[in-house]
Amino acid sequence: MQHVQAARNFHNEHPMTPPELDPNVTSAIENSFAKQGLMTTIGAELHLVASGEVRLRINARESLTQHHGFLHAGIIGTILDSSCGWASQTLMPLGTEVLTVEYKLNLLRPAAGSNFEGRGTVVRAGTTLTAAEATFYTTNDPDRLIATMTATLIGVRPQSSD
Amino acid sequence: MQHVQAARNFHNEHPMTPPELDPNVTSAIENSFAKQGLMTTIGAELHLVASGEVRLRINARESLTQHHGFLHAGIIGTILDSSCGWASQTLMPLGTEVLTVEYKLNLLRPAAGSNFEGRGTVVRAGTTLTAAEATFYTTNDPDRLIATMTATLIGVRPQSSD
Amino acid sequence: MQHVQAARNFHNEHPMTPPELDPNVTSAIENSFAKQGLMTTIGAELHLVASGEVRLRINARESLTQHHGFLHAGIIGTILDSSCGWASQTLMPLGTEVLTVEYKLNLLRPAAGSNFEGRGTVVRAGTTLTAAEATFYTTNDPDRLIATMTATLIGVRPQSSD
Amino acid sequence: MQHVQAARNFHNEHPMTPPELDPNVTSAIENSFAKQGLMTTIGAELHLVASGEVRLRINARESLTQHHGFLHAGIIGTILDSSCGWASQTLMPLGTEVLTVEYKLNLLRPAAGSNFEGRGTVVRAGTTLTAAEATFYTTNDPDRLIATMTATLIGVRPQSSD
Repeated sequence: MQHVQAARNFHNEHPMTPPELDPNVTSAIENSFAKQGLMTTIGAELHLVASGEVRLRINARESLTQHHGFLHAGIIGTILDSSCGWASQTLMPLGTEVLTVEYKLNLLRPAAGSNFEGRGTVVRAGTTLTAAEATFYTTNDPDRLIATMTATLIGVRPQSSD
Repeated sequence: MQHVQAARNFHNEHPMTPPELDPNVTSAIENSFAKQGLMTTIGAELHLVASGEVRLRINARESLTQHHGFLHAGIIGTILDSSCGWASQTLMPLGTEVLTVEYKLNLLRPAAGSNFEGRGTVVRAGTTLTAAEATFYTTNDPDRLIATMTATLIGVRPQSSD
Repeated sequence: MQHVQAARNFHNEHPMTPPELDPNVTSAIENSFAKQGLMTTIGAELHLVASGEVRLRINARESLTQHHGFLHAGIIGTILDSSCGWASQTLMPLGTEVLTVEYKLNLLRPAAGSNFEGRGTVVRAGTTLTAAEATFYTTNDPDRLIATMTATLIGVRPQSSD
Repeated sequence: MQHVQAARNFHNEHPMTPPELDPNVTSAIENSFAKQGLMTTIGAELHLVASGEVRLRINARESLTQHHGFLHAGIIGTILDSSCGWASQTLMPLGTEVLTVEYKLNLLRPAAGSNFEGRGTVVRAGTTLTAAEATFYTTNDPDRLIATMTATLIGVRPQSSD
C-alpha cells in the first residue's frame, strides 16, 4: 500500500481555468432559465454560467420549507437538477435542449441557513448522454455540504429546428 | 428456463388490503403536511394515507413549469420524496419524524397533462431505515408512468419528546 | 382522501401474459450470456427469458462472500444489472447491444440463504433509453426482498452491422 | 454572475494530508478484506488505506468480462462498493462493522484497459450513516474516469462484542 496523494475529484476532466464560453450559449441558458416558471416561483437566481459548470442561488423562505422549517429536499433537488442540466448544456452544440434522464440526491445535513448555492458540474460529456454532479451548501460555508447529486442528462435537438 | 409467472413487484410484503391505520398517525401526517410551506406553495393535496402508502396530488400550473412548459422535474421529485416520507411514517411508532437519506428519480416521459398523482409505498420497514418507492402519473392514466423513485428514509425520535 | 385500491407496480405497462418472444432474440441473449466470462466465474444461470423480463439464478458459495459470509453486494449488483440489461434487450430490435448507463442498488437485508434469483423487468422501453428495475430474493421466499435495483440502459447498434 | 473559481469537490471536508490512521483500524480492514471470499475470487488488491479513503486494485482477466470482453460493470460495482465501505470504516470507532445501505453507479466509458483502481472516499461521516463516493479508472490514466459511485453506509456494532 502507498500513501495517499493529493485529492482528486469527479471534475478532473475539466481544468481549473475552463475555456471561454460562447456568449450565445450563455444567452440560451439565460433564456431557458427565464422560461422556467418554477425558478421565479422559488426565487432562484442564475449565479454563474461557465464551461461545464453552472451555479444557482436561492434564499430560505417560509414558502419553501419542510415540516421542521428547513429548506425542503424537493427544492434542493430542483436547484441541483437544474444546475446539472444547464452545466451540461454549456458543453453541447448551440440549440441543443437538455432533458434529465435520472438523478440521485444524497442528503447529508438539514438545510439550515439563509442563503444557499447549488453547483452543477459536468463529469463526462458524451455524444448522447452527459454525466453531471452537483453540490449544495450555504454561501457562507461552501465546504460544509448539505447535499450531493449525480445525474444523467440527454441532449435533444428540437424538431422545430429543421 | 421456465415460463413467466404472474407479475410480482416491489410492494410484495404489503397485502392488497392493508391493516387499519391508527388515526393518530394519520393526524400526525396531516399536521406534518400542513407545516410544510412548500406544499401550500405548489398546491399539493394529501390525497390518501394508508398503511405503508401515501398519495399526493398536484395540478399543472404556469408557476411550476420547466422550460418546455411541462411540470418541472424538481416538483416531481418533491411530490415523490414527500409521498415516500409519509408512507414510511405510517409504519413507524407514533411521534417518530422522518428524514430522507437519499432518493433517486428516473424520469420516463415529459410530465404532460393537467392533474398528477404521486404514490409512495414502503418496500421494507426496518428498525432504523425504511426503503420506499414511488411512481408519478396523470390521474387519468395511472398506468403510463412519468417517473419512478426509490428512496431511503430514517426515523428520528424528536429530542423534545424526552 | 380515498381508500387504497389494488396494488399497482412499476411493471404496469407489461401485461401478465407477455407477448411471444422472437426465438432469435432469446438466442442472442443466450449467446451474450455465454460470452460473459463473469457469469461462468460466479456460476450464474440464465433461468428465464421472456418479453420484458429476464431472471438469473445463483447459488451461495464461499468464493462469493463478503466478510460476514453472506453473498457479496457486488454479486447482487452483478446479477441484477445483468438481468436488467437482458430484459431490456428483449424489447429492442434484433442485433442491438445493450450497455448500462447507471444503476442504483438498495440493499434491504443480508443475502442469507443458499439459492437466489434476480428478476429484471422493463419499466419503460424508449427509442434510445430503457428504464428497468430488478428484485433479488431467495428462491424459496420470493416475497422477502433482499435488494432492489433501478437502472437505465442504452441500446447500441454494433458498428460491424453496417 | 461571477467568474468560476477553483474547482471544489465532494471531498472537501477532508484535508489533503489526512490525519494518521490508527494501525488497529488498518488491521481490522485488512482482516475484513481477507474474509471476503469474493476479493480472492476476482483477484482484488487492497492498495491503500488512509483516513477517509481506501483504494482497491484489480487487473483485467477473461474470467471477469462482460459480453464485449471489457471488465463487467458488476465487478466495477464490487470494487467501488468495497472501497466505499472500508473508507467509511476508517472513520468509525474500532470494532464497528459496515454495511452498505445503497449505492448508485454511473458508467461513463467501457472499462477498457488492463489495470484498474477504485478509490472510495468519505463525503460525510455521521453518527449513524456515512455518505461516500468512489471513482474507477485505469492506473495509467487516473483522470479518465470509467465510473463513479455514490453510496450510503451504516455502521453496526457487532452483537458478539458485548
